[in-house]
Amino acid sequence: MISSKMVDLVKNSSVIRAMFEEGKKLAAKYGSENVYDFSLGNPSVEPPERVKEAIIEVLNEENQNLIHGYPNNSGYEDVREKVANHINQKFDTKYCHDNIVMTVGAAGGLNVIFKTLLNPSDEVIVFAPFFGEYRNYVSNYDGSLVVVSPNTKDFQPNLEEFKDKITAKTKAVIVNTPNNPTGVVYSEETIKKLAGILEEKQEEYKTSIYLISDEPYRELVYDGVEVPYLTKYYKNTIVGYSFSKSLSLPGERIGYLVLPDELDDAGDIKAAANVATRILGFVNAPSLIQRAVSRCLDAEVDVEIYNRNRELLYQSLLSYGYECIKPEGAFYLFVKALEEDDKAFVEKAKAHNILIVPGFSFGCPGYFRLAYCVDYDMIKRALPHFEQLAKEYGF
Amino acid sequence: MISSKMVDLVKNSSVIRAMFEEGKKLAAKYGSENVYDFSLGNPSVEPPERVKEAIIEVLNEENQNLIHGYPNNSGYEDVREKVANHINQKFDTKYCHDNIVMTVGAAGGLNVIFKTLLNPSDEVIVFAPFFGEYRNYVSNYDGSLVVVSPNTKDFQPNLEEFKDKITAKTKAVIVNTPNNPTGVVYSEETIKKLAGILEEKQEEYKTSIYLISDEPYRELVYDGVEVPYLTKYYKNTIVGYSFSKSLSLPGERIGYLVLPDELDDAGDIKAAANVATRILGFVNAPSLIQRAVSRCLDAEVDVEIYNRNRELLYQSLLSYGYECIKPEGAFYLFVKALEEDDKAFVEKAKAHNILIVPGFSFGCPGYFRLAYCVDYDMIKRALPHFEQLAKEYGF
Repeated sequence: MISSKMVDLVKNSSVIRAMFEEGKKLAAKYGSENVYDFSLGNPSVEPPERVKEAIIEVLNEENQNLIHGYPNNSGYEDVREKVANHINQKFDTKYCHDNIVMTVGAAGGLNVIFKTLLNPSDEVIVFAPFFGEYRNYVSNYDGSLVVVSPNTKDFQPNLEEFKDKITAKTKAVIVNTPNNPTGVVYSEETIKKLAGILEEKQEEYKTSIYLISDEPYRELVYDGVEVPYLTKYYKNTIVGYSFSKSLSLPGERIGYLVLPDELDDAGDIKAAANVATRILGFVNAPSLIQRAVSRCLDAEVDVEIYNRNRELLYQSLLSYGYECIKPEGAFYLFVKALEEDDKAFVEKAKAHNILIVPGFSFGCPGYFRLAYCVDYDMIKRALPHFEQLAKEYGF
Repeated sequence: MISSKMVDLVKNSSVIRAMFEEGKKLAAKYGSENVYDFSLGNPSVEPPERVKEAIIEVLNEENQNLIHGYPNNSGYEDVREKVANHINQKFDTKYCHDNIVMTVGAAGGLNVIFKTLLNPSDEVIVFAPFFGEYRNYVSNYDGSLVVVSPNTKDFQPNLEEFKDKITAKTKAVIVNTPNNPTGVVYSEETIKKLAGILEEKQEEYKTSIYLISDEPYRELVYDGVEVPYLTKYYKNTIVGYSFSKSLSLPGERIGYLVLPDELDDAGDIKAAANVATRILGFVNAPSLIQRAVSRCLDAEVDVEIYNRNRELLYQSLLSYGYECIKPEGAFYLFVKALEEDDKAFVEKAKAHNILIVPGFSFGCPGYFRLAYCVDYDMIKRALPHFEQLAKEYGF
């Protein structure tokens, strides 16, 4: 009796749930300390202490009906103003509250923007490997996902193929940097070329093509790498941000969209995003946490903890014979599977109690994703098993 | 450049925004104490002190990554179990965590359930007057809204017309009791008849018709009135609940769906609701507030404050010559406009600095809605103006 669109989605999710259940079974059988779960992007580093303080400050200092009542659908004006100022200070931009829509995480923000922009069969381009949920977000509004195949040399986007895949129906392009699943940060050179292509194609087709920068991992970067702020390179850029990883608050569902005045039809887009937030049932981003994050915009989780995990896992895997780009951001390694069939490889890893996600889920078969937002000691315990697994493949 | 579906929605919202701006202008011109805003359903009664305590308890007693991390898309299992037990105690039902999906308010819950159930052009029946957002929620999934015209005698649903409007394409029926905008509670007699009709029609068409009970106002009732729990009257009932009004937390976006095992295809529906929560971008109901409400399920706002407003406003309006059913629940009065054209009447009220919502917004022209979730003293100050307005119409 359920919607026919949901039937396949439920089937797929049963596969994931089965994997989950299997993990639980392994833990019950071998003890949870002997199961090495690298499958989930759930932050392991605690939120900064400042977050807890800020929530309690809000509760003690502000009016209860203000804290818990309906804000504007786009968020509290003072919160949005603080967010805008924070961005301005960091990136030398000129936003005000009117350019910010507080959202139910980045996932909420992306749904709002696709509801705002897409007509049925409008095309949205993504670069493989990509976060698999984009497929669903675009499909929610009957858009059509166009996938640019992966550049497995360095996992920068394949711009030649990108150019060829832009059509008169291209409404938006998603970039996700630092990237899930590769951890790669798109270089300034890449961004400039990408912007140039978009401008050329807008001119050619007399259309507006919106670049959607999905940035939940912006603050998780290593080795002092800079992540270019995309609104500065291309006029029709919309930023989707989330505090899920920067403050380790994924369950709280808090993020924002940046809708610059420079966008084609900026007025309509801002008004429609406000309405979309309401009618999609979000109504507004959760109120207490809006007020709390506005008090700790400068706070950050301790990225060094992830960095230590990254170094240990990356160096060790390389020494065992695995091939992998060293990630500059996020908390993922995207590793070449030791056989062509990544699903089969994932099964073999499971025989060593190692839980990982096959690359085909990200549109990039032949690889697997390791989420290293986990306990350091679990990594240490897992390493001999990764080594053993490599040996089975003759390394 | 925005989606063509959004163009009209933006136009309508501009009208509402204009009304909002006009209210601000009136306040600037005459002083905010001389503007009488009865337009918004934003709770005026403070959340129970217990809510603040519970939030701080969670922060001090529980693990920070548990509080703020990703729960299951359907919510924390322990929270869902507590919610189920609470319902069981109150209504003598037999639910467990598996029957509960925590949602981003009732609006989030309704979107999840329509995403779960609707195929394009499936019909969803509502009884006028009804909360206007239902139209958008159904349209989000390309469903078709079928409106049963109002029974203005007592605002119980018009069951004769209802019977005629059920077709083989009827997938769901929404009831909202206590009702927005009338404050009417559907009687047990009504519910039994309605259930009987649904059973007959399911039999006739060999279909499943889901009854969706939207219950944000369940706890706001007066004079000891009982609100029947609909799952006990009709097997294919889904309940959408919200803490927005019972705990005055509308900004927090927290509620739940009840998906009984007795539903046709219960397993698929539960699985699909879990997936829909994820892919619509909610991902999960906000986490800290999930944990907090699970600690104060017995708390309630002080309904007596609304009751006092209800009595004053109802008795006074009657004495001035207005016609209105005495509401038994929620915090609205649905009053007959003093001329046929409710929009014109609302404009005349505005000349007295009274802000109200025309009945046509609820599918019931000729009436207007007063939200009495406002300051008691504002009502007192407004009364002479309501009286004056009635006099202008010759009362």
